[in-house]
Amino acid sequence: MNRSRISPPLVLVNFKCYLEATGNKAVQLAKYAEQASAKLGVIVAVAPQTADLRLVSQQTKAPVFAQHVDPIKPGSHTGHVLAESVLDAGASGILINHSERRLEAGIIEDTITRARDLNLATVVCASTAGIAAAVASLGPDMIAVEPPELIGSGVAVSKAKPEIVTDTVSRIRKINSEVVILCGAGITSGEDVREALRLGTQGVLVASGIVKAKNQLAAIEDLAGACRRVGK
Amino acid sequence: MNRSRISPPLVLVNFKCYLEATGNKAVQLAKYAEQASAKLGVIVAVAPQTADLRLVSQQTKAPVFAQHVDPIKPGSHTGHVLAESVLDAGASGILINHSERRLEAGIIEDTITRARDLNLATVVCASTAGIAAAVASLGPDMIAVEPPELIGSGVAVSKAKPEIVTDTVSRIRKINSEVVILCGAGITSGEDVREALRLGTQGVLVASGIVKAKNQLAAIEDLAGACRRVGK
Amino acid sequence: MNRSRISPPLVLVNFKCYLEATGNKAVQLAKYAEQASAKLGVIVAVAPQTADLRLVSQQTKAPVFAQHVDPIKPGSHTGHVLAESVLDAGASGILINHSERRLEAGIIEDTITRARDLNLATVVCASTAGIAAAVASLGPDMIAVEPPELIGSGVAVSKAKPEIVTDTVSRIRKINSEVVILCGAGITSGEDVREALRLGTQGVLVASGIVKAKNQLAAIEDLAGACRRVGK
Amino acid sequence: MNRSRISPPLVLVNFKCYLEATGNKAVQLAKYAEQASAKLGVIVAVAPQTADLRLVSQQTKAPVFAQHVDPIKPGSHTGHVLAESVLDAGASGILINHSERRLEAGIIEDTITRARDLNLATVVCASTAGIAAAVASLGPDMIAVEPPELIGSGVAVSKAKPEIVTDTVSRIRKINSEVVILCGAGITSGEDVREALRLGTQGVLVASGIVKAKNQLAAIEDLAGACRRVGK
Repeated sequence: MNRSRISPPLVLVNFKCYLEATGNKAVQLAKYAEQASAKLGVIVAVAPQTADLRLVSQQTKAPVFAQHVDPIKPGSHTGHVLAESVLDAGASGILINHSERRLEAGIIEDTITRARDLNLATVVCASTAGIAAAVASLGPDMIAVEPPELIGSGVAVSKAKPEIVTDTVSRIRKINSEVVILCGAGITSGEDVREALRLGTQGVLVASGIVKAKNQLAAIEDLAGACRRVGK
Repeated sequence: MNRSRISPPLVLVNFKCYLEATGNKAVQLAKYAEQASAKLGVIVAVAPQTADLRLVSQQTKAPVFAQHVDPIKPGSHTGHVLAESVLDAGASGILINHSERRLEAGIIEDTITRARDLNLATVVCASTAGIAAAVASLGPDMIAVEPPELIGSGVAVSKAKPEIVTDTVSRIRKINSEVVILCGAGITSGEDVREALRLGTQGVLVASGIVKAKNQLAAIEDLAGACRRVGK
Repeated sequence: MNRSRISPPLVLVNFKCYLEATGNKAVQLAKYAEQASAKLGVIVAVAPQTADLRLVSQQTKAPVFAQHVDPIKPGSHTGHVLAESVLDAGASGILINHSERRLEAGIIEDTITRARDLNLATVVCASTAGIAAAVASLGPDMIAVEPPELIGSGVAVSKAKPEIVTDTVSRIRKINSEVVILCGAGITSGEDVREALRLGTQGVLVASGIVKAKNQLAAIEDLAGACRRVGK
Repeated sequence: MNRSRISPPLVLVNFKCYLEATGNKAVQLAKYAEQASAKLGVIVAVAPQTADLRLVSQQTKAPVFAQHVDPIKPGSHTGHVLAESVLDAGASGILINHSERRLEAGIIEDTITRARDLNLATVVCASTAGIAAAVASLGPDMIAVEPPELIGSGVAVSKAKPEIVTDTVSRIRKINSEVVILCGAGITSGEDVREALRLGTQGVLVASGIVKAKNQLAAIEDLAGACRRVGK
């Protein structure tokens, strides 16, 4: 899927290194994303592990994001992740600076530059309003606000700390009026999503709330449905 | 391919992040490895990028190694490389601590442990005789000796610094009589391989000498043929 | 010296790990800074190695900066640099994110927070206009613009790439009207300084241009004198 | 104090980043070390923070260790710790690879080399028997065995897991008959020390057990006294 077609409202599902979203289970989960997207008219993208990028992109129509890319150019970089390689494997975008994979400031900028050169969409994660404002100056396509203390907690940042979301949106908008703002950390229900979008964000970045759900398809539809109603 | 079947003499081709060995070109190069192996009776394994592991393992019979794995367990580890994931993608083994991806001592040990639990073969790279002796205590399946100043130089360590190879073999053997010893760095010809095996190693780890060769198949056959004659 | 007294125009001399600025030679160089400051009415601060902070701050009146601090709190952090420790040793401020000691974005923010809590002045280094704009959102006291390709080159950024300086100043000012902007990389003469200040910066961060000078005192006076004339 | 004079039995007190062992309190604690050493005839060395090395070495006779050194040579290395600098500040030795400051295998080797060139004693920390055996191949002066799960626990490794100590000693001795072996992690009493020495170690590396003690002098004398009786 072309980078320009990844427009909000958006649900982005981070598969992390969960076994429930590895290999064939990654494909299954991406198919649920595809189904929910077709049904509800909201983009539902997925971020599988690097080794699953091609499998997922070949077997589903869900937009695929890599969870990490190194800002290297092709060459002698054993054990690194090359942007050209994830593009070849079918990725439409990349996650950058997730709180579980933090990067030097200069590396964030260089990775955005490399992604842009290859027309890969970029989502930079930010754990505080200050970091979100900072990365807004680096020109990513999207910023995901993820206070690390809420990741995997089941408590949505939009409900637990609504002022973090509004403050972050406000600080980002003073610097960058174009960037798409996602709300992450603790999102598990459509109600969380509605609250997040009311606070000024344009989509959500979710992980365990979907991956660990007993009914993954229902969980995705709940979030995507909430995106649609608010987004329109 | 089962870990126990990866026995010396062995040629292991590291694809690094070369475009000449990405995506379909990775498959092509692995097919050459498969052909040379069938013709010459020597195992020729390949280490493609993570995003290409499944593609290569599905389309060829060459044993496939990951270039890097993180010693994590399944869970919340965005942007990391899970051993279960590369195994699911068809890997038979992993490279650890390449000079372009150096690791803390404890991480090397933990990665070996994780690989062993999943029956993945391990090749730990060592840039000096001291490091090679040190990692011999950690119980990997193989150690590859790669003085970083010779990597990609076109000058084989077995010729430029034969005493490094013999000293390293001697130091490793005092500690670990089982580990398979590979010679890396600068290997480009069958003559380099023969010299390396005469010095006591049991195979070679190569990269640009194969990947950048005008005739990749001929280059692999040259190395594998030299392995066979000395190995027998 | 109190953080609030470190006001522009400012010359900040980074001693790096040069032997010409280690131990007693660090004291000598700091005394030159003190002399030049007294003579020319411009603040000349010094950033010696951690082990020399106390020696330099006890034997001279030059404001002293640490070259790096970890954003830890007192406790079990063997081998780290505690803000309380450099404060106790006499530091008035700290360098953060020098191109030779790059930090994760979140670490930069946390270090600024820790420094502010202890009333230590902060200088965050930025290698590009984008990084400079980004760190402007994090609220440091000062930003030093240092394109890494010019560090130690003897070619001043203010002359080689004046548009980098003006672009950076412009981008920073849109976000942060208070932060003091220093020009780094390649500054070796008063003329370099004058040009840097004409382009909108308020001081310079220098290293080899002073430390490696045959006549260190004359070199400092040259830079400080240029600061004074432009600053007034 | 000359490196060759730091002979076992030995008590080495790691001050970490504790405020109870920063600045003047570091000096006070080092004076207790000096007193206990003079009274009991056992070497009691101290490892203060980098900024306190000179203060402690000037005001006491206790042998002083740096908590970390980077394996750099003098030059452009802002924010790093130069071996020449800690030597100039009075250090007799250095800690390497503490579990709170883990290093790449190659960095451990390079740091040992740099220390040896400057006649600084080296203590490499190892968190497992495997790592201890590995670093034994790198030729440090001393190895400290510190299972990280026991650090700061108040439970001595020599009592909680005596088989770790004996296994480690055995594995180290097969490779290196010269290296001095210290027992770390959880040591708080003379009884812990006696047990550690009975298991084949030649001294202890301690931190919170001393630094956080209500009576620091008594705590040191307890440990040093136990060393003496067993050591003789």
